[in-house]
Amino acid sequence: MPLQQKHLLGLEGVSAADIGLMLDTATTFREILERPIPKVPTLRGLTVVNLFYEPSTRTRISFELAEKRLSADSVNFTTSASSVKKGETLKDTIRNIEAMKIDMVVVRHQAAGVPHFLTQCVQAAIINAGDGMHEHPTQALLDMFTLRERFGRLDGLRVAIIGDISHSRVAGSNIRGLMTMGAEVMLCGPKTLMPRDVEKFGVQVTCDVEDAIAWADVLNVLRIQLERQEAGLFPTMREYHAEFGITRQRLERAKKEITIMHPGPINRGIELDADVADADYSVILDQVTNGVAVRMAVLYLLGGNEESVS
Amino acid sequence: MPLQQKHLLGLEGVSAADIGLMLDTATTFREILERPIPKVPTLRGLTVVNLFYEPSTRTRISFELAEKRLSADSVNFTTSASSVKKGETLKDTIRNIEAMKIDMVVVRHQAAGVPHFLTQCVQAAIINAGDGMHEHPTQALLDMFTLRERFGRLDGLRVAIIGDISHSRVAGSNIRGLMTMGAEVMLCGPKTLMPRDVEKFGVQVTCDVEDAIAWADVLNVLRIQLERQEAGLFPTMREYHAEFGITRQRLERAKKEITIMHPGPINRGIELDADVADADYSVILDQVTNGVAVRMAVLYLLGGNEESVS
Amino acid sequence: MPLQQKHLLGLEGVSAADIGLMLDTATTFREILERPIPKVPTLRGLTVVNLFYEPSTRTRISFELAEKRLSADSVNFTTSASSVKKGETLKDTIRNIEAMKIDMVVVRHQAAGVPHFLTQCVQAAIINAGDGMHEHPTQALLDMFTLRERFGRLDGLRVAIIGDISHSRVAGSNIRGLMTMGAEVMLCGPKTLMPRDVEKFGVQVTCDVEDAIAWADVLNVLRIQLERQEAGLFPTMREYHAEFGITRQRLERAKKEITIMHPGPINRGIELDADVADADYSVILDQVTNGVAVRMAVLYLLGGNEESVS
Repeated sequence: MPLQQKHLLGLEGVSAADIGLMLDTATTFREILERPIPKVPTLRGLTVVNLFYEPSTRTRISFELAEKRLSADSVNFTTSASSVKKGETLKDTIRNIEAMKIDMVVVRHQAAGVPHFLTQCVQAAIINAGDGMHEHPTQALLDMFTLRERFGRLDGLRVAIIGDISHSRVAGSNIRGLMTMGAEVMLCGPKTLMPRDVEKFGVQVTCDVEDAIAWADVLNVLRIQLERQEAGLFPTMREYHAEFGITRQRLERAKKEITIMHPGPINRGIELDADVADADYSVILDQVTNGVAVRMAVLYLLGGNEESVS
Repeated sequence: MPLQQKHLLGLEGVSAADIGLMLDTATTFREILERPIPKVPTLRGLTVVNLFYEPSTRTRISFELAEKRLSADSVNFTTSASSVKKGETLKDTIRNIEAMKIDMVVVRHQAAGVPHFLTQCVQAAIINAGDGMHEHPTQALLDMFTLRERFGRLDGLRVAIIGDISHSRVAGSNIRGLMTMGAEVMLCGPKTLMPRDVEKFGVQVTCDVEDAIAWADVLNVLRIQLERQEAGLFPTMREYHAEFGITRQRLERAKKEITIMHPGPINRGIELDADVADADYSVILDQVTNGVAVRMAVLYLLGGNEESVS
Repeated sequence: MPLQQKHLLGLEGVSAADIGLMLDTATTFREILERPIPKVPTLRGLTVVNLFYEPSTRTRISFELAEKRLSADSVNFTTSASSVKKGETLKDTIRNIEAMKIDMVVVRHQAAGVPHFLTQCVQAAIINAGDGMHEHPTQALLDMFTLRERFGRLDGLRVAIIGDISHSRVAGSNIRGLMTMGAEVMLCGPKTLMPRDVEKFGVQVTCDVEDAIAWADVLNVLRIQLERQEAGLFPTMREYHAEFGITRQRLERAKKEITIMHPGPINRGIELDADVADADYSVILDQVTNGVAVRMAVLYLLGGNEESVS
């Protein structure tokens, strides 16, 4: 059964069957990555444009590696080298790029909804690599892949997402995906960083990180951005750490094994202590490795919708 | 019969036979681009450096795709990451790059004559991707390819180029190429944006856009640059649009079908109205698609001069 | 006999056997570069990250070409597009990159010791492409390769390094490599640009460039940096040229053939006169060509330590 999506814009409305298919396909690619030559000719002849309107290191490299390992051709387009300054509309940019016979577009943009908008402009398959504070679906998929690998299941798993929920596209996609797959989700963070309409998600909410730790099997710790402090949403990094920082002491008090995740890059000593990040119950580097496999799966499944892929 | 050029520096002095050969070769590559796997091994083992001293999106991506589809290896060099700041001479930069065994150089530079200068420094084939206000030959070739595809001929075709003629390398190359191929050319724009020695081209000139529309089969509408306004060469964007903007009303008054071209990026609502840019008599996106085929043809024909291409 | 190094961090402590193996291997690749298709499938499936925290043109392009000609996959990471601003630690960056299944890392960094530090963080092979004022081993290897090609030997060869010795990683690596290979080394430059502990190297030192020329078979002329003048380490560029500039007059006075080297980019008319740089006893462009072969050899030998290379 093929994927029921032509694009991957987010995990909202994506069925459990489709998420399962993406995760199962990623399992195959995860094995390929362990081979001496971790490369397959699957997408040979396909061209993917990586359209990054926001700076990014790991996500761009992860997609680029996924593309190379599928033997696709990649072209990079970043804002600094772009015609954005020339005042061209986004629609003209994307239609021009498509006119050069591009098969897929991986897009990151500071404005929510840009990937969806692009689907109305072009025929190419669009993959959202992060749009504003909206969705970052491949991050949530790689988080779920990592959890499924560790626990053998997502159903019934208790995942607490800690930090700046309201500005986080990682949280947005994780909440949607985890709920669809039957996991239980708790959100934990300062009230000022919690979405106003948080109850719409049907998740539990707490401002007490100890409650979250006591409840959870897994903590997905979000990066705290300095600009939130500058905006007055919390007093200081030190106080954030005192109230929400994940420390070994806090975890030990829970008297059970807890799995630690973080989408990176980590602010060590702020949202997450260094010894916790590097502990053997941390799966942070597994997330990164799995990210390449998950992105290969998404590229493969969406590329397969094109007639040009055999 | 091979190309009589070792380099593509401009269309000045290039024979009708050579232009015809480039356009015919592009036709072959245009068909290859429609294949499921739009890629040929023709230039495998050849290395092309894309040397962009000016920011560019579409031209750089178009060349990069052309190179990848011919299986050449590409290396990108842009000013921001370059040793320009270190004060190295252009000659040293290019000779160093050539010493690394480069076969072809695609160069864009803000100074007219740089591509020609490079031919005196190195053995590699040089392709001009735009030099100052001088020439942009692959743009003119793709414009001519697009017209030949649409009209079946160039001879006798009436092409009006509208806008900032004096600062436009697109105009410069189009005038030369079209005249060589037997087309008739009219130039139309504010007197302040018309070259002083415009009569040397042997073309018609008008300051009345309605005259140009009444005369032409094709309008090639140039992008108007904000900096020309800042330099006092025309009063405001609004007034430019009122006097030279291509609108549906103006085209309808001509009571005939006119083909619309634009080298991009478009200032919608200034030199060209949005509904005209998107009309079915606009070939703007065809130009972009054809650009990849034309650049493949140029790379192929010049690469064939090297002994290293079989 | 395989290389006794897992990494190439510098030439300090690298044996004559290992240097010889790298130079011999480079000879093979130097021949491959003369083939019609200068490409081998040797490192197919291997992924190399070029991690450049300092701007670079020739070194980055040289490594990138070496990687492409060995059929490795390359991913570029430069500071401008990086998460450095986001405050991630270098250790986290490199561990994340490695988690994406990278085989080799080519790193340039303004801080001495970064390549060594990286070896403690990851399993991937690390190649130093220049760290602060410490080492730039592939530059010294390509310099030695060029000399061995020209003289048939390194043993007993008299190499004078001219210029800003104390801030030069090129000098640092050349001194170590040349001494190991039995060459004699003399350092020449202003006292203010000579390392305080220069005697530790066991080399000759002079402040008189005429002495150096009289003694040497080879002059390796270093680039003088404007910022040294700004720091007050020498009065003006003109005076530097008057006292240390390599001119034809000075060379003719020595009444013997001297080979001229320069790591580039050259300040023509300052440390080196233009006619000397372009003379037939200058091997500056050979150095550049040989650089690709030497880097292919290093990538090949270190890649061969990985089980993933067949």
